[in-house]
Amino acid sequence: MREAALKYRVNNNRIIDFSANINPLGLSPRVKKALISGIDTALHYPDPYCEGLKKKLASSLGVGEKNILIGNGSCDLIYLIPRVLTPQKVLIPVPTFAEYEYAVDVSKGMCKFLFLEEAEGFSVNPEYIIDNIKKMEMVFICNPQNPIGNVMKKEELISVVSQCEKRGVKVIVDEAFIDFVQGYDYLSLVKDAVSRENLLVLRSLTKFFGIPGLRVGYLVGEEGLITEISSGQAPWMVNTLGQIAAEEALEDLEYIERSRIYVCEEREYLFSELKRITGIDPFPSAVNFIFCKLTLDEIDSILLDEKLGRRGILIRDCSTFRGLGRRFIRLAVRKREENIRLISILQEVLGTEG
Amino acid sequence: MREAALKYRVNNNRIIDFSANINPLGLSPRVKKALISGIDTALHYPDPYCEGLKKKLASSLGVGEKNILIGNGSCDLIYLIPRVLTPQKVLIPVPTFAEYEYAVDVSKGMCKFLFLEEAEGFSVNPEYIIDNIKKMEMVFICNPQNPIGNVMKKEELISVVSQCEKRGVKVIVDEAFIDFVQGYDYLSLVKDAVSRENLLVLRSLTKFFGIPGLRVGYLVGEEGLITEISSGQAPWMVNTLGQIAAEEALEDLEYIERSRIYVCEEREYLFSELKRITGIDPFPSAVNFIFCKLTLDEIDSILLDEKLGRRGILIRDCSTFRGLGRRFIRLAVRKREENIRLISILQEVLGTEG
Repeated sequence: MREAALKYRVNNNRIIDFSANINPLGLSPRVKKALISGIDTALHYPDPYCEGLKKKLASSLGVGEKNILIGNGSCDLIYLIPRVLTPQKVLIPVPTFAEYEYAVDVSKGMCKFLFLEEAEGFSVNPEYIIDNIKKMEMVFICNPQNPIGNVMKKEELISVVSQCEKRGVKVIVDEAFIDFVQGYDYLSLVKDAVSRENLLVLRSLTKFFGIPGLRVGYLVGEEGLITEISSGQAPWMVNTLGQIAAEEALEDLEYIERSRIYVCEEREYLFSELKRITGIDPFPSAVNFIFCKLTLDEIDSILLDEKLGRRGILIRDCSTFRGLGRRFIRLAVRKREENIRLISILQEVLGTEG
Repeated sequence: MREAALKYRVNNNRIIDFSANINPLGLSPRVKKALISGIDTALHYPDPYCEGLKKKLASSLGVGEKNILIGNGSCDLIYLIPRVLTPQKVLIPVPTFAEYEYAVDVSKGMCKFLFLEEAEGFSVNPEYIIDNIKKMEMVFICNPQNPIGNVMKKEELISVVSQCEKRGVKVIVDEAFIDFVQGYDYLSLVKDAVSRENLLVLRSLTKFFGIPGLRVGYLVGEEGLITEISSGQAPWMVNTLGQIAAEEALEDLEYIERSRIYVCEEREYLFSELKRITGIDPFPSAVNFIFCKLTLDEIDSILLDEKLGRRGILIRDCSTFRGLGRRFIRLAVRKREENIRLISILQEVLGTEG
């Protein structure tokens, strides 16, 4: 089943959704206000290529406007890249976000999967990538990695990009969750992408700003490469309300700072509480979700998903991720009272109190 | 210059925009209310394939849900069709909506243009199409025709579809403006598309419902063909607010009926007033815009556009449409007081009072 279908669940007040990795603080009040007062923009065509938003992003990222391409969510851009660049062979370290694979399929490319090792915490080893890029034309790297939540060091990534450049391989780095990372500014390859012809960096505005319903993502790269990829995009891809929300969100510095601190604190809380439960083993995470291994023989991820679902808790059963068996789940970091409820129900379901 | 860029203009209260063909009644109050109370849906992923909207459309059109594919505006679908079906040669009667040509270009197909005759009111002659489909794989027909506003008879279109079927040519009929036509139900090929493997019908929700900012369009066709085209679409293409607006709009029968009557009356009013002005010759129209020829030697469409622009009136200079020179403009039908203002300024600028 596709991630797309999985991510769409009925959200009502009695269900707590730990399956979607959205900012637990929800919609920023400033963004909500801007959306309400912007409803009448529905009556006009949107800026076809989001020039206003591009300008704000360029200034906030410290790159040029021509280094940015905005899409209808980063998923739109994940499909656009292989469509325009038509790579025949694409390397994908897994487990990772499934849409890379689907996007390559749609563009009639072949995927080669690099299975990351559980013993190494599913971390992406740069040498392992370099050893496998022979005959490849493109590689997708999700950093921070979804569903693991770990981070590849900038130096390592840059060395991969350089090695790939020599071999004519394009590197697509998906930084969808990087805004949640402490010190993300240093970690991001956004500024490097401007001058490197084989590097494209994907960013999302929907996870961090809590607006997945509005579909806004962007791509940063060298001007010529961005122009080439833009040529495959239809106009008017981001609707007026998506543009309004994104523009307002970028300026809401108070919300940005507050979100980063809140998620960091709650992640640490949730991690330490999970650690205390027998039957579940959380992996270290730098972002707003925690990947966990289930260690009791009698409860696999499918069964746990079902048991929690019946108690109003949605989690991400990771058995649908390529390269993972039925022993892994992903939990979004949510508000304190929700995290407490999760812990309490997990203790109840796993039948243990650490 | 692309239609996309042209359609994006600053809309403020002092400017009256006759260049974009949007329902003059604006956003329906019901839709506006639904949008405001739906703002918080921004926090959740949208239904990835708009199943709720599909169900409502299927029931309102009398076709199956599997005969419908929803896109991020019909423009998204205009690009998707040649991308998936990859026709090498595509016939396009012109003047018409420019995005068909751009979409075929992006998909590396070749366009053959069929220049419609001014002497025949730029009408699409079915025999003229049949005579030219040899070696073609696809034909785009805009019905009602944009920018002309005329309509091709259903029997004629069906005969084109049948002839094309024998020759393995796919027919894409764009009915973006058909909701404005009196008796549009009979005219539409939506129900025919369900059982014909070489016919796809494009529809828009943005023009008639005044929501171009929200990007919602759809495609109707035979189940297998729709499945094939869907395979090239990324998930989550229509955002939550677009889906909410579209679902609500379809149920607002009072607004639908009122809009059709209003546009019909205003079109007749505007047409008869334009007829009385020397220097401008309106073409008969079945929709919410009127195509006009400028007959004074000293004022072409570019100059008129400029002169009206300085007076706060935006019109569509049609010199950018393939197959039209600098003597044609397109005027959207707007509210009575706005239409009166247009007439008065046109009289002033053209220097005549008929």
